[in-house]
Amino acid sequence: MNMIDLRSDTVTHPTPKMRELMAAAPVGDDVYGDDPTILQLEAEAAKLLGKEAALFVPSGVFGNQVSVLTHTQRGQEIILGEYCHIIQHEAGSVALISNVQTRTVPDEKGELDPAEVERIIRKSNDIHVPVTGLICVETAHSTGNVASLENLEALRQVADKYHLPIHMDGARLFNAAAYLGVEGKDLAKYADSVSFCLSKGLCAPVGSLVVGTKEFIDKARRNRKVLGGGMRQAGILAAAGLEALNLRHRLKEDHENARYFGEELAKIPGITVHTDSIKINMVFFTVDRENFQGEDLVEYLKAKGILINGDDDGLFRFVTHYYITRERIDLVMKNLKEYFS
Amino acid sequence: MNMIDLRSDTVTHPTPKMRELMAAAPVGDDVYGDDPTILQLEAEAAKLLGKEAALFVPSGVFGNQVSVLTHTQRGQEIILGEYCHIIQHEAGSVALISNVQTRTVPDEKGELDPAEVERIIRKSNDIHVPVTGLICVETAHSTGNVASLENLEALRQVADKYHLPIHMDGARLFNAAAYLGVEGKDLAKYADSVSFCLSKGLCAPVGSLVVGTKEFIDKARRNRKVLGGGMRQAGILAAAGLEALNLRHRLKEDHENARYFGEELAKIPGITVHTDSIKINMVFFTVDRENFQGEDLVEYLKAKGILINGDDDGLFRFVTHYYITRERIDLVMKNLKEYFS
Amino acid sequence: MNMIDLRSDTVTHPTPKMRELMAAAPVGDDVYGDDPTILQLEAEAAKLLGKEAALFVPSGVFGNQVSVLTHTQRGQEIILGEYCHIIQHEAGSVALISNVQTRTVPDEKGELDPAEVERIIRKSNDIHVPVTGLICVETAHSTGNVASLENLEALRQVADKYHLPIHMDGARLFNAAAYLGVEGKDLAKYADSVSFCLSKGLCAPVGSLVVGTKEFIDKARRNRKVLGGGMRQAGILAAAGLEALNLRHRLKEDHENARYFGEELAKIPGITVHTDSIKINMVFFTVDRENFQGEDLVEYLKAKGILINGDDDGLFRFVTHYYITRERIDLVMKNLKEYFS
Amino acid sequence: MNMIDLRSDTVTHPTPKMRELMAAAPVGDDVYGDDPTILQLEAEAAKLLGKEAALFVPSGVFGNQVSVLTHTQRGQEIILGEYCHIIQHEAGSVALISNVQTRTVPDEKGELDPAEVERIIRKSNDIHVPVTGLICVETAHSTGNVASLENLEALRQVADKYHLPIHMDGARLFNAAAYLGVEGKDLAKYADSVSFCLSKGLCAPVGSLVVGTKEFIDKARRNRKVLGGGMRQAGILAAAGLEALNLRHRLKEDHENARYFGEELAKIPGITVHTDSIKINMVFFTVDRENFQGEDLVEYLKAKGILINGDDDGLFRFVTHYYITRERIDLVMKNLKEYFS
Repeated sequence: MNMIDLRSDTVTHPTPKMRELMAAAPVGDDVYGDDPTILQLEAEAAKLLGKEAALFVPSGVFGNQVSVLTHTQRGQEIILGEYCHIIQHEAGSVALISNVQTRTVPDEKGELDPAEVERIIRKSNDIHVPVTGLICVETAHSTGNVASLENLEALRQVADKYHLPIHMDGARLFNAAAYLGVEGKDLAKYADSVSFCLSKGLCAPVGSLVVGTKEFIDKARRNRKVLGGGMRQAGILAAAGLEALNLRHRLKEDHENARYFGEELAKIPGITVHTDSIKINMVFFTVDRENFQGEDLVEYLKAKGILINGDDDGLFRFVTHYYITRERIDLVMKNLKEYFS
Repeated sequence: MNMIDLRSDTVTHPTPKMRELMAAAPVGDDVYGDDPTILQLEAEAAKLLGKEAALFVPSGVFGNQVSVLTHTQRGQEIILGEYCHIIQHEAGSVALISNVQTRTVPDEKGELDPAEVERIIRKSNDIHVPVTGLICVETAHSTGNVASLENLEALRQVADKYHLPIHMDGARLFNAAAYLGVEGKDLAKYADSVSFCLSKGLCAPVGSLVVGTKEFIDKARRNRKVLGGGMRQAGILAAAGLEALNLRHRLKEDHENARYFGEELAKIPGITVHTDSIKINMVFFTVDRENFQGEDLVEYLKAKGILINGDDDGLFRFVTHYYITRERIDLVMKNLKEYFS
Repeated sequence: MNMIDLRSDTVTHPTPKMRELMAAAPVGDDVYGDDPTILQLEAEAAKLLGKEAALFVPSGVFGNQVSVLTHTQRGQEIILGEYCHIIQHEAGSVALISNVQTRTVPDEKGELDPAEVERIIRKSNDIHVPVTGLICVETAHSTGNVASLENLEALRQVADKYHLPIHMDGARLFNAAAYLGVEGKDLAKYADSVSFCLSKGLCAPVGSLVVGTKEFIDKARRNRKVLGGGMRQAGILAAAGLEALNLRHRLKEDHENARYFGEELAKIPGITVHTDSIKINMVFFTVDRENFQGEDLVEYLKAKGILINGDDDGLFRFVTHYYITRERIDLVMKNLKEYFS
Repeated sequence: MNMIDLRSDTVTHPTPKMRELMAAAPVGDDVYGDDPTILQLEAEAAKLLGKEAALFVPSGVFGNQVSVLTHTQRGQEIILGEYCHIIQHEAGSVALISNVQTRTVPDEKGELDPAEVERIIRKSNDIHVPVTGLICVETAHSTGNVASLENLEALRQVADKYHLPIHMDGARLFNAAAYLGVEGKDLAKYADSVSFCLSKGLCAPVGSLVVGTKEFIDKARRNRKVLGGGMRQAGILAAAGLEALNLRHRLKEDHENARYFGEELAKIPGITVHTDSIKINMVFFTVDRENFQGEDLVEYLKAKGILINGDDDGLFRFVTHYYITRERIDLVMKNLKEYFS
């Protein structure tokens, strides 16, 4: 990657090793269950997250949607955080595909309050009242937050009390695990199903996985076909995916870089960074400078080979990843200092 | 009605005059557009609410659902109050039938905050982001609250700014109008469609109406067929409905009775009534007495010919209506005083 | 009914006795399970059709849709006749509400060929292949045909072999029973659920019933709420419905009148009636006369107080019912003879 | 591919050249519109089929489903062939995702009869009657048939007469074109949207394309997100896809091989092949030999390194493709002759 791309970790290119592995990958027809690389990836993913089985799917959205479809019945109500990906960035899919009523609770801190979740779980059998069918949690959260183990444990207890399944949107599960200093399965154990992405920080070009019980994954495999996610010689992608799993060990580097980045940014007068709140690979900051125009900064940096997103209501987000080395951060800082001088 | 039924105003029987009118009603096949009493009722309802056209439907739930289906496209997001009937008491229907994502804002006071509504309206064309398709308001609200004209006006301005339709769940629209001292159309003018019930405080046995533009009602008429709400000689019900419209003038009596009831209740030690918050025909109160068991009170009154619902998390609701005269309130009070003595 | 209305039996007005019963009906809030007349009607309907339980619904379409919703899961395939009401006259409802794939077999004779049904039932567990969830039969069929007991028995055996439920759209179930000289329950026993109309030949103004096991009806009751079909003091309609059940005994009169009508029509040169195929209350015929214009006949008769539908691809349908006495048939014939003279 | 795999052309591995191209592919984040290889593939696909725009999707099922979702509104009716892929092999998806009623016409010969299609198009505005929203054709058909240009032309005229769009499931579009001796765009011109697969005979590991007007593709791009088909560095797959487009020129070789295969098979006593009906790369045959067991043949060949599917109701299908050379056919024939000797 020649450009310094701070827009997201979704922009990561496959590593040279991934390209090599993809070129050499043994493949087969996965719809016939014949693709050895897919079978290997699904087996490793299940083991890694302490579940019985896994399913390869085309995207993180797909992983969430096929999970909700598999857990619920039409017309049920599901509980999720107001700022979670399913509500904010999946284009209303969950209503269109699964016909479920969405009920949200606050999640600005990356956690759902177990008491609040319990409060809105439907307890009545009255025919007027919807039936709660699922609780969805997201960690790491797209706000850069990470739910604590205590929070997940408490949600699990609420779910168990009402015999409800939990789906964990773990698009950045390994970032959450790295932050907490635990393994992926230490988070996955609180959920009935988990989806996580091989792309993003893990650098694979395409693909996500859903894990759960064998029974759940069998049903989800059928639903994957329903949603058009059955792919043929997907082993090509799985080969990159297997290497992506290895890259989980280096995610803490991205987190350290983000913290370093934040500390440097905070030195520029007028830039406010809550450095304490940098948990994973995301740095959020605001700019308070006279005549400052976000779009102008975007253009300025682009001309220098640096890509950033414009601000969202004043808030900027820089994301670190495999291709954002400390040297590149220093280069970005140099340009920023010049810009703000 | 021999029993004194305080559970809801949905329990109201048709009045003797309604029974007479139903027995004599001219009818026809409404699916052929041949039922003269239906045609008359729809015309009067439209006129009363200042809209072009009206549609007779079997229930309040039906009126809301057919309206949402007619306003929206699958996969859109709709904005509503967290405690509105559509979210709380329509069994998840809106997700099952219309495939829309529900996004809620606080409405404990019976109003949606226009700023909060504006905040969550989707402004982005990004393909990740759902499309807002509709705003739903409910007045009178099932908490017994009534949105102010100022609030409705402000919501209308927000809706207009983003070219969004408003559906008004006016199951108890005429209670709201009576409280505000205005006509139904003074509320309806803020909405693109309004549904209201002929049953409840208006005493008709069955039926609700949806009003809107002619184009909207034509589409809704087709959707009524889709949802199985086309009825044949519905003029029988419309005859009662025409009389029900007249009963709107007496709703303020129910409100006064509710206030009287609340004041009397407040005199019993240990009973707390927020008398100031009694706006329509609902009295909410709590009981703080040693060893008090809600179910015991229910049983005690039932034996005296008085029906009440058990408490909902400590909160009791008594509802006044056509059959709850001041004498009957006094009789209930007599029994309550004995019970709590 | 002053007009002679041959368009359908859906046009029947309630009888004077029904009006009397409606005016006097004991009622209650059916959503609370409090309406005694509804309870009585549901109990009688269940007993009459040999099922455990029954549910009152607003229309025939509603009865079919709530049944399909209750039997199936989203994405399943259901098997029905190509010309059945669900496919032809319910506005695509079954796809919108129940999300089921419709698979049709020929039914011009009012019967589904059991071998053909068996052929298309999905036997594979392959994830590509849809899952068959339900078989729907309709008797009497809207073409005026009636499935034989042997045909229903054979379909039942096929359904049992594959553990599939059968829903019977019996909008005119008692017409079918009258034709076959059996009781309603002799037909209902072949189906898991049956819906039938109190309107049409039975003259009630509004309402249909669904019958089945207690478990099925409990689920359907919840789904009735989802679809907006819960009504309050519906006992008014149930009172007419109870009398409607009595009128089933006179349906054979309508059938005899239809046959008489057909024989008389056949005497007019140029009119072709398949008198042998007149089974219930419907007479189908074609007109082969020079310069004959269907719309002209419709207008001519209308001016004489006689309502008929225009032809459908050359085919006319006259329907007999409670208000089509032999005298009125003779009056129609007199006018037709004049017209065609 | 070491095994001789006759089960389907879906089993084709990527060619060595494809692997090379994938390893070297320039990529970017396709959700940001940044992937140059995807952009190139979409541009070439659109040009090749004479359409304004194209969209890369994960599978053939996905291409069909996103197209139906984009063309239709919920509750509409769509017309398709009874044996088409959407009805038979997409697990009921079209009902679950798009909520459309499916209406089928015979298509055993790989063509829909235009007169039959016209007959069932809904012409009435009556609210009982569903609204026809789309006609789907499939060519080459999964029965190995290919619709004639005359047939497609006639269907186009019917569609135009009723202002209906046509979606063409061209999973094997280039096989159809090769058989007819025309270009892909000579078929695509009869349809508003076409989906075709880069896998199957064209050997790409994963991916299909949908083409249509720019407006249609913009809407479909949003719906691709809804269905979870947005992928990130999909350029890896697109690189193989670009080479796959080149392979369309060799499909006639597969067809010739299929014909050769059929002729050889027909020489074995008891095997019946309709060699005249071999149009593309599929050979269908039946076996009439005493004590013959299909499963036994499957096992026998498997032990020899040859994979075939078992029979479907007595009918076997062998599929030729890139990896089924004439030498390999001769090797299969040698084994079959031994088996049947």
